[in-house]
Amino acid sequence: MTKVSIIGSGNLAQHLIQAFQLNSQIELVQVFARNKKSVAHLLDSDAITSDYSQLQVADVYIIAVSDDAIAEVSSQLPFENQLVVHTSGTVDLDTLHDKNRKGVFYPLQTFSKNKVVDFKTIPICLEAENKTDLQLLKKIAHSISDSVYEISSEQRKALHVGAVFVNNFVNYLYQIGNEICEDNQIPFDILKPLIQETANKIVTLSPKEAQTGPAKRNDLKTIAAHEQFLTDENQATIYKLLTQSIQNNGKKL
Amino acid sequence: MTKVSIIGSGNLAQHLIQAFQLNSQIELVQVFARNKKSVAHLLDSDAITSDYSQLQVADVYIIAVSDDAIAEVSSQLPFENQLVVHTSGTVDLDTLHDKNRKGVFYPLQTFSKNKVVDFKTIPICLEAENKTDLQLLKKIAHSISDSVYEISSEQRKALHVGAVFVNNFVNYLYQIGNEICEDNQIPFDILKPLIQETANKIVTLSPKEAQTGPAKRNDLKTIAAHEQFLTDENQATIYKLLTQSIQNNGKKL
Repeated sequence: MTKVSIIGSGNLAQHLIQAFQLNSQIELVQVFARNKKSVAHLLDSDAITSDYSQLQVADVYIIAVSDDAIAEVSSQLPFENQLVVHTSGTVDLDTLHDKNRKGVFYPLQTFSKNKVVDFKTIPICLEAENKTDLQLLKKIAHSISDSVYEISSEQRKALHVGAVFVNNFVNYLYQIGNEICEDNQIPFDILKPLIQETANKIVTLSPKEAQTGPAKRNDLKTIAAHEQFLTDENQATIYKLLTQSIQNNGKKL
Repeated sequence: MTKVSIIGSGNLAQHLIQAFQLNSQIELVQVFARNKKSVAHLLDSDAITSDYSQLQVADVYIIAVSDDAIAEVSSQLPFENQLVVHTSGTVDLDTLHDKNRKGVFYPLQTFSKNKVVDFKTIPICLEAENKTDLQLLKKIAHSISDSVYEISSEQRKALHVGAVFVNNFVNYLYQIGNEICEDNQIPFDILKPLIQETANKIVTLSPKEAQTGPAKRNDLKTIAAHEQFLTDENQATIYKLLTQSIQNNGKKL
């Protein structure tokens, strides 16, 4: 069995703990949590430590902490020449301390505290300094996910920017849709099937093929009516920019 | 049985034809199609006409044509004081010709030619000049959908703008995500589970509660790194505007 320890106790750490616990190929050796209570509902107390010197031997140490803490945490580890990976979409491999072998184990998904996710469908992006470590990471990743990719640090940065567009920004557009509904005494529920179908469409069509709407068909009358309707300056500015951008097909504005 | 005729042969008309054909409470009397071939695969030829003077008696005539053609088509109808409804999210009730009783039967969904949609989950927004007509439209709408709303012309305009944000603009952000992947030799498939989960999240959380990301947590370091990464001017402009907008929580920029 592959021995895994997790450093961290946040959202992602907790999802990983649960995924590895369900897994017969992985032995979850230990979890490091500054506040032991934060993961006490998931593990026996003797499998939790808040003391770096108490960390036991494992095949890989997965650091699942906030981006800013990765360098510091990896420097605190009281051993050398072990495989230590972080789980961040944005942080360089080299941010990990040099005393250990470095890698990345980045599950690309949005994790909420109270929403169970099916790890099988979550893409895991891997990076390692040497082939043997990469093979081990692949084995671990495949044990919880059907979707495993080798991704360089440069590509991971690009992916993270892409994720901001399709997750953070998309959700913000949902919020604007919600605001427009509320301002006009319309239940936001009316837009939810459209939101689902918009996401479902691109499973079979490319986004370019799936694009519809007044901007795409250059329907200037509808665009003018919408711009007149939007009295909220923030909403109007976003409407104008995205409409122009679709009209110009992404070419320089 | 309620007698329904459909004027039009495009995407929506075809989806409505199929929904009514499956329905025991509705008799689909006739379809008007300028080009009879366009719906010949769906109906017997004697149920299709391209001649307004051949339109038979029905309880409601549903005009499912492009927005710009609604006024002209409704003026061509060779009868008076019948219930005539259009299916548009943007067109005023009053755009329909005065000689008939007016109404709106607007299914709020994105319809693709080759993608079957389940009408049961599609919200249908109704409007009518009088109560009896509204009741009839409700009956028809409930026969194909579980989600029926009475929506005024003003509210319908707001809804359509909201739909542009959560459908057209969201899909365009998917396209940018796709471009970023392609430019960095990353399969777009890696982002698809995130796209699905982003849409699924707001079934249980409000978009405001679901918002995450560098802009939301005001992570200036990551934002600066992303802005540096985005060399495409169009992508960079959109990134900056949406980031600022999330940081300011929608307040004036």
